[in-house]
Amino acid sequence: MEFVLKYGHMEKDMDSPARGLPLPAPAKAGGNYLSAKRVGQLLFLSGVISTDDQGVLTGTVGADRTPEEGYAAARRCALTQLAVIQQAVGSLDAVESIVSLNGYVNAVPGFADTPKVINGASDLLIEVFGEPGRHVRAAVGVSALPRNAIVEVQMTVLLREGY
Amino acid sequence: MEFVLKYGHMEKDMDSPARGLPLPAPAKAGGNYLSAKRVGQLLFLSGVISTDDQGVLTGTVGADRTPEEGYAAARRCALTQLAVIQQAVGSLDAVESIVSLNGYVNAVPGFADTPKVINGASDLLIEVFGEPGRHVRAAVGVSALPRNAIVEVQMTVLLREGY
Amino acid sequence: MEFVLKYGHMEKDMDSPARGLPLPAPAKAGGNYLSAKRVGQLLFLSGVISTDDQGVLTGTVGADRTPEEGYAAARRCALTQLAVIQQAVGSLDAVESIVSLNGYVNAVPGFADTPKVINGASDLLIEVFGEPGRHVRAAVGVSALPRNAIVEVQMTVLLREGY
Repeated sequence: MEFVLKYGHMEKDMDSPARGLPLPAPAKAGGNYLSAKRVGQLLFLSGVISTDDQGVLTGTVGADRTPEEGYAAARRCALTQLAVIQQAVGSLDAVESIVSLNGYVNAVPGFADTPKVINGASDLLIEVFGEPGRHVRAAVGVSALPRNAIVEVQMTVLLREGY
Repeated sequence: MEFVLKYGHMEKDMDSPARGLPLPAPAKAGGNYLSAKRVGQLLFLSGVISTDDQGVLTGTVGADRTPEEGYAAARRCALTQLAVIQQAVGSLDAVESIVSLNGYVNAVPGFADTPKVINGASDLLIEVFGEPGRHVRAAVGVSALPRNAIVEVQMTVLLREGY
Repeated sequence: MEFVLKYGHMEKDMDSPARGLPLPAPAKAGGNYLSAKRVGQLLFLSGVISTDDQGVLTGTVGADRTPEEGYAAARRCALTQLAVIQQAVGSLDAVESIVSLNGYVNAVPGFADTPKVINGASDLLIEVFGEPGRHVRAAVGVSALPRNAIVEVQMTVLLREGY
């Protein structure tokens, strides 16, 4: 199932073209937890792993995956998070800004380019939301991710007043 | 030293039986930090490692520990966090809901079932608090935890108005 | 480029001497993200890696780096975060308290002393801010950090009313 992304903030970011990016299905929780939980205007999102239409994008950067494949996987995580947000609050128009992002990369010991991988998620968010999409983050390499995914991305989002 | 858990939200969740779970001693900080810090109605909790009455539950899932032992260790982490909350705000009745949980599993490279391990913590929280216990989370595998613990669990909690 | 730390909270913590610690240059983002983002009175900071005047402090604790070198690296991370805060809000006087800190240590599998390493950051924050510098935290060992840094430290800070 695919959704078409209705680009938010058209009024605010007139320079940014609508992109009509296709959104994947929102993540189904792989355990006993929620995909999103709201506290006031903050929307906390669970970590989502890298998937495409065929299933989980698996592997280890520096072993059977390149940094470029990692970047693409991180971008997929961010797309899934957009679908989660849309499902949680009805529309991406509700997003005031992206606050923070924690990116975990399934990587070989000593892999030094986790930021380049996680840029795949950050670039997508800035593409979609413009400046309000810029966020703080941490990007670390770990030895094991759920279902052997290449990347996991966790986020916190600020919602606009009125949503 | 053990506390008896007085089940919170009896008025709200009449269907949930009180459980009288024994609570462990709250975690003593293993470094120069606090176990809990409050900002408004949010209570931030430090990561706690898996322990039982005998001390730290140590080991690596996929090597000398099974996923089931990891699940039990994660449950112990959540129990300790309940004791930390009780100590910090006086009663588990103060808990409006569990917002988020980050679970770190000491696991061999490529271990794919971190969510099943961290369910040990999530299941316990839902058992104790019912629906308000449901939370967002991330579950990742790491190569090293304090005192070689099997699991570390970090949480953020929303407190009820009036507490 | 170095800044001199103007010690905050002189009125509040009369016992604490001003320290005149030299601050490093604030971190330049190593990817497409912000160093700091504010939501209300909370200031979220990106993870910063360990650096000194010569560049990145690299290596793996338990392999080519000792825990003491890790401690010193964590302290450097916290110093950089002070410079980030100063740049973001104009002065360290704006800091009401340090809320939380996540410390990632580049460590060999099974390294059990991540808390001792991350104390390097926690000790510095308490040295500078006194009791309000005490925070919750998690300290985990990971297999890969950006630019092969020894330590990465991510923080959340509460700002004083009026700032």
